[in-house]
Amino acid sequence: MKEIKIGILGLGTVGTGVTKILYDNGPLIMSRLGAKLTLKKAADIDLQRDRGIKFDDGILTADPLEVVNDPKIDIVLEMIGGEAIAKDLILKAIDNGKHIVTANKALLASQGNMLFKTAAEKGVSIAFEPSVGGCMPIIKTIRESLVGNSIASISGILNGTCNYILSKITNEGVSFEDALSEAQAKGFAEADPTLDIEGFDTAHKLAILSSIAYGTEINLNEIYVEGISNITATDIEFADQCGYRIKLLAITKFTGNAIDARVHPTMIPFSNPLSNVNGSLNAVTISGDAVGDMMLYGHGAGMMPTASAAISDTIDIARDLIYGTHTRVPMLSFQMEQIEKIPTQPIEEISTHYYVRFSAIDQPGVLSKISGILGDHQISIKSVHQTEQKLNGAVPIFMLTHQAKEAEIQKALSKISSLDIITDTPSLIRIEGTN
Amino acid sequence: MKEIKIGILGLGTVGTGVTKILYDNGPLIMSRLGAKLTLKKAADIDLQRDRGIKFDDGILTADPLEVVNDPKIDIVLEMIGGEAIAKDLILKAIDNGKHIVTANKALLASQGNMLFKTAAEKGVSIAFEPSVGGCMPIIKTIRESLVGNSIASISGILNGTCNYILSKITNEGVSFEDALSEAQAKGFAEADPTLDIEGFDTAHKLAILSSIAYGTEINLNEIYVEGISNITATDIEFADQCGYRIKLLAITKFTGNAIDARVHPTMIPFSNPLSNVNGSLNAVTISGDAVGDMMLYGHGAGMMPTASAAISDTIDIARDLIYGTHTRVPMLSFQMEQIEKIPTQPIEEISTHYYVRFSAIDQPGVLSKISGILGDHQISIKSVHQTEQKLNGAVPIFMLTHQAKEAEIQKALSKISSLDIITDTPSLIRIEGTN
Repeated sequence: MKEIKIGILGLGTVGTGVTKILYDNGPLIMSRLGAKLTLKKAADIDLQRDRGIKFDDGILTADPLEVVNDPKIDIVLEMIGGEAIAKDLILKAIDNGKHIVTANKALLASQGNMLFKTAAEKGVSIAFEPSVGGCMPIIKTIRESLVGNSIASISGILNGTCNYILSKITNEGVSFEDALSEAQAKGFAEADPTLDIEGFDTAHKLAILSSIAYGTEINLNEIYVEGISNITATDIEFADQCGYRIKLLAITKFTGNAIDARVHPTMIPFSNPLSNVNGSLNAVTISGDAVGDMMLYGHGAGMMPTASAAISDTIDIARDLIYGTHTRVPMLSFQMEQIEKIPTQPIEEISTHYYVRFSAIDQPGVLSKISGILGDHQISIKSVHQTEQKLNGAVPIFMLTHQAKEAEIQKALSKISSLDIITDTPSLIRIEGTN
Repeated sequence: MKEIKIGILGLGTVGTGVTKILYDNGPLIMSRLGAKLTLKKAADIDLQRDRGIKFDDGILTADPLEVVNDPKIDIVLEMIGGEAIAKDLILKAIDNGKHIVTANKALLASQGNMLFKTAAEKGVSIAFEPSVGGCMPIIKTIRESLVGNSIASISGILNGTCNYILSKITNEGVSFEDALSEAQAKGFAEADPTLDIEGFDTAHKLAILSSIAYGTEINLNEIYVEGISNITATDIEFADQCGYRIKLLAITKFTGNAIDARVHPTMIPFSNPLSNVNGSLNAVTISGDAVGDMMLYGHGAGMMPTASAAISDTIDIARDLIYGTHTRVPMLSFQMEQIEKIPTQPIEEISTHYYVRFSAIDQPGVLSKISGILGDHQISIKSVHQTEQKLNGAVPIFMLTHQAKEAEIQKALSKISSLDIITDTPSLIRIEGTN
């Protein structure tokens, strides 16, 4: 029986999960793969910590070079995270002719173009299913199941921390700060949650998805990113009354000559299945010309779900190796020579429906002034709602607009903000999925 | 550039859809595959019908043997349906060394063991993603993305007609007959809807899923099958009041030594995402030891979604051929020599929660007699609801039970049915997803 040998860099959460699967489900994997998948070496700086695993002798090492330089290892699983060290080790492993599996969305989003090019030149593969959406087979679905489809758009809830916080505010009416504290206490959110709540983690994942959906180079820096830290219970409650949920969405659409890729809090109608995705769960809707809308839903993070995706990638590569080939499915879905740099549409050029909340002084003529400025910018109001109840001493005015241009709404909001009657920066939330 | 040539048997709905994708998205497919995928021949008895496609010269033929015997064709897509003719043509094509893509769930469920064995002996593949769940990548997800998981259970809404009818009754309170008529008028339901509404189509799909999930031979005849024709608006309304939806579910679980595989109307709590799957949409939840619960959701039938799955399978085979291999992923997920005959657990041995509705004469002591018999069979009542409003002259009594054994509840219902006070056969619906 053939044997494929792997090495793991980093026995943190995901690396430990991978080892557990290999040890617990080894015979099952063999009965499916028809070959043995063996953990040859695993490197971590902390070899003392009890991971609940009895490693075979000679597997553990504190030196990652023992993994990337081991001539018997076929596949290296980079499970360290972070950019500098991980990148150097991946490049070294590639140079040694090893195939790579990685969950490192930050590294791929920032340096993926170079890494994939280097791997292709060296004739090895970089697999990255665990980098987006935990256990959900998003990469495989786009790359293989939808291979006959022109992809119109992808919309996803790709960060469990943000979804947990928004669900908590929605269902329990707590403040953003309290929801975040609870997410941290439960271990969903990092001590420094910036990467999650400001949308950057979601943007990393979106950069990867845009690339494989449309055959473009990875282009993180051009993606518009807005996090959830300004979302209030008031916004969520008003959205609910109008039949919407607020979710942090990663959105990518092909406009015909550019990619409209953005991450921001989004109001979506109850009828959109993404609106029912609660807690730390993730989901992604892919829209293709043949399949229509298709959704994947599951655990977007966590030890075992992410490890499951890493094992899936590892076995894909192992199957290629058993049959004497590699990179049978192009890493970025398209043949390398077909990948071009497709421009990103600036956020100012999008056109959608908007929710806006103003805080104003309670005096006659306020609504007239606001709606006058909106009208000057060709923004048509769909509904307006003003309550008697004051919020921080000001009157909140809620508006939903018809489809309008982002550039115009930004100009209008800027003008309205400078009015004496306005007491606070207006809130703006983009709406998706209505006509 | 390499070229892979395909032939299509049957230009009905799916065969036409496949052709449309090949013609419309040909350049896109080539930029992903790195090779040309060419339709060499397509056979159908009706060559006159306008399919909205301009076929290249020399492609169309009325003789299916021109497809299966063409030495230049690598992959044959069997899109005829039905069992006898399709089987003969598939066997002939296999004998000629061609790989097969089929959407024919009925054929695979009844003769799959023989067909897969024959293909393996001949060194060709039978691919069947389009046979289950339309565009949803159920087969690929189980076989490849969950390759590291021990699969605990699969629950799916796999028949769009049934789901359309149940959704219609739920949302509009119409009768089963009216919902079925509308499904037929809209083209969802066949003129003879027996295969769909009696659960057989769902059972065909479940037989295939059980096989690839657990490495068992396909075993259609041992699956318990119950359709939706006895479900009434009354049952659905009561379920709704208790926080449940009624769906026709395909369920397969591994009990440790047997497979609990069954198709029946099922009450599931609102908290289960399958409860929100409405209209003709399909969805499937797969539970694995590493991934937890994961759901796929999308169009489970229809020309283009099913054709998309057929193209995905075709390209999977084409990729194998380009790299000089075949059957890189085992057809039934496990290596052929690992597939055994795992027994199916008889329905009498399951243990679950139940909903029961009795129709009784309005007189004292009725509830005492019914609950006495249930108690004799160790069936504990969780809640009971009796209305003043009579249904067909009788008093309806609704009950939810705690977990009970199917054999016991069947015996109890049989005894209760024979009481003079009972005016109609009791309704029984199994509940899943509660503790």
